[in-house]
Amino acid sequence: MQYTKNFYQIKSNDEIFEKIKEEKTHIGYYNLPSQDTTEIKEFAKTVKQKDIVILGIGGSSLGTYAIHKFLQHKENDKKLHFLETTDPLDMDYKIGKIDLNDALFIVISKSGTTIETVSILKYLHSLVKIDKENCIVITESDSKLNDFAVHNEMKRFFIPKDVGGRFSVFSPVGLVPLAIMGLDIDNILNGCKEVNSSFFEKKEFYDEIMHKARFIVENKNRFNINVIFSYSSLLEGFNKWYIQLWGESLGKININMTKQGLTPIGLLGPIDQHSFLQLIVEGKRDKTVTFIKIEDFQNEITIPAISLYGLEELDYINNLPFKKLINEQADATIEAIESLRDIPCDVITINRVDEYNLAKLMFSYQLLTSVVGKFVQINTYDQPGVETGKIILKEKLQG
Amino acid sequence: MQYTKNFYQIKSNDEIFEKIKEEKTHIGYYNLPSQDTTEIKEFAKTVKQKDIVILGIGGSSLGTYAIHKFLQHKENDKKLHFLETTDPLDMDYKIGKIDLNDALFIVISKSGTTIETVSILKYLHSLVKIDKENCIVITESDSKLNDFAVHNEMKRFFIPKDVGGRFSVFSPVGLVPLAIMGLDIDNILNGCKEVNSSFFEKKEFYDEIMHKARFIVENKNRFNINVIFSYSSLLEGFNKWYIQLWGESLGKININMTKQGLTPIGLLGPIDQHSFLQLIVEGKRDKTVTFIKIEDFQNEITIPAISLYGLEELDYINNLPFKKLINEQADATIEAIESLRDIPCDVITINRVDEYNLAKLMFSYQLLTSVVGKFVQINTYDQPGVETGKIILKEKLQG
Repeated sequence: MQYTKNFYQIKSNDEIFEKIKEEKTHIGYYNLPSQDTTEIKEFAKTVKQKDIVILGIGGSSLGTYAIHKFLQHKENDKKLHFLETTDPLDMDYKIGKIDLNDALFIVISKSGTTIETVSILKYLHSLVKIDKENCIVITESDSKLNDFAVHNEMKRFFIPKDVGGRFSVFSPVGLVPLAIMGLDIDNILNGCKEVNSSFFEKKEFYDEIMHKARFIVENKNRFNINVIFSYSSLLEGFNKWYIQLWGESLGKININMTKQGLTPIGLLGPIDQHSFLQLIVEGKRDKTVTFIKIEDFQNEITIPAISLYGLEELDYINNLPFKKLINEQADATIEAIESLRDIPCDVITINRVDEYNLAKLMFSYQLLTSVVGKFVQINTYDQPGVETGKIILKEKLQG
Repeated sequence: MQYTKNFYQIKSNDEIFEKIKEEKTHIGYYNLPSQDTTEIKEFAKTVKQKDIVILGIGGSSLGTYAIHKFLQHKENDKKLHFLETTDPLDMDYKIGKIDLNDALFIVISKSGTTIETVSILKYLHSLVKIDKENCIVITESDSKLNDFAVHNEMKRFFIPKDVGGRFSVFSPVGLVPLAIMGLDIDNILNGCKEVNSSFFEKKEFYDEIMHKARFIVENKNRFNINVIFSYSSLLEGFNKWYIQLWGESLGKININMTKQGLTPIGLLGPIDQHSFLQLIVEGKRDKTVTFIKIEDFQNEITIPAISLYGLEELDYINNLPFKKLINEQADATIEAIESLRDIPCDVITINRVDEYNLAKLMFSYQLLTSVVGKFVQINTYDQPGVETGKIILKEKLQG
């Protein structure tokens, strides 16, 4: 008896692991942790401007934003701006906050011809002289944007051809602006390395990622929504980055022409206890929930021992450090959900708010995405579904 | 033959309309458009402080944030801040941006004992003297927070008892801070009135809302995710408000003990063309998509007629106003999705970026939520699912 070769079956962990090892030879992000960061760090030291402006959209900005947002309080006194949308009012408002004469523009586009990025670059050209003194470029080595940079003698950093946009945060795409902002990019890569080697040496992260991926895939028709519930507003950018990574990588037609797709949702605690939580608790059982907690915020601000007239019943929160309160809120929500017994949920705890720990979280999510992609037999790294819209747009604008 | 009274059946539009009319007698938000705003406007004129700080979470801040974010460029030179989370690093960072000696604190809590809000109020007390000179309160007339305000002789505004938090943006909860920021709150209410009377007089909005609600309910098991894809970054706050309104109102156990729940997603165009769009196009067919467009941004910034070396192929965007580009991007995405023929999608167009038009959009979404809630036979206005977590938290903190 013989089965058709492509018929959908969930492979064994060992088979998937072999496929991932094979993929590692031609998918570049696995190898980013060991890159040499000397040139990036040297360049970062030379940047004099106060306003750092990223021109980039999607994979060219989301990862950088995630790390920046998490570690904003540790950055130097430069200010990081993101210009990405073509909304004229939003753009006007954001450009109004930039000192154009004391700004470094970082143009980031893998393909080099992203319409949003080039539109904004052209518009900035009409406001201020853009040249090698105030503009650098991060792109593929043979893109049209690279030609532009060479012609203008601008500093260039390259996105490896085999690294896709949403897997590029640990390439120069993220490392260059983050180094300029004073963050420790070697410690970022150390976090990646830790997870990468643990996974490929079949240690702790191998078991965790395989186990979680298998659960998600085996239950994907029942639980087709994967919620991340982050108990820190600093993870707002991480949530957005996760939504792109998960949605765009896994929303695909697989080798059997079946439409796959797991819907990512990003929530922030405790804020979304007052919003989405009701839907998780009493709504349809179509969601998995992953809580993310920060073990030690390394911040000591505390609710003072003050009794407010009328509100004395809340005096039990007196002397409570906020870092303890938010984690107790997380634990209470986790307990409430676990007590229902029919909502799959897990908890990831980050030790500290630093480069190393966020990088571990992000790299492990990239690996998880790759493994889930292998299980459901899709190409995790392309995005063919967005091409039709691009073609229609070009026709509209050229016609 | 007789059927059990409660057995699930989708009622006729007329039956639903009768039920909504009945609901209008005891659910307060329907009647907010006709409130007298004199006191609010008079008070707003007296506010001298530069930093306006809202202490409120969930329904006490999301609606205000939505309108503020949309109309930020039209506000006066005061600055609006939102303190809501208990994340200590985020709170420290946000408080650092406030001039505490030139700030008006607006404490908003319907119940009056929201733990996040009271915690932050207490913490602020340890940083600056909080009294009737720099603090006002918006709450229910008989709450503990009202006692606090009376004791301290603070200015008070009231949330009507029959108006729930997520339906309270057009009560003093939203109108007081927005009036202080210089926005035209009467024009906000005019937008609400327009939709409200059109609906209850069975005119344009009646047909649109009934039609859409019925489609959503009849197809809720197939399309259990409702995406809003807003083509303006100014609608970022609206998206968040929608997520609370939809998720918390409709995620309920209905009268037959069936777990209902439609999952709201908020996207921004064109940014999310580079993220979630791939999942919509090639992923599982479990989503409806509502596009929101702004007809006229009333902003003339334009891509200049500059040819950049290497990037000449993009010269077809020269001389294009950004307001046209973003709408062409929206139309291209809409066409691409419509061409697939199996993703239900509709388009809402807002005429202009002003108080009146955003209020129309928001009020029509409140009505849509109410109608869907009636169809699926739930209580749209409570949130029993979040109580367990609150009880567990209290036990943890008191124990």
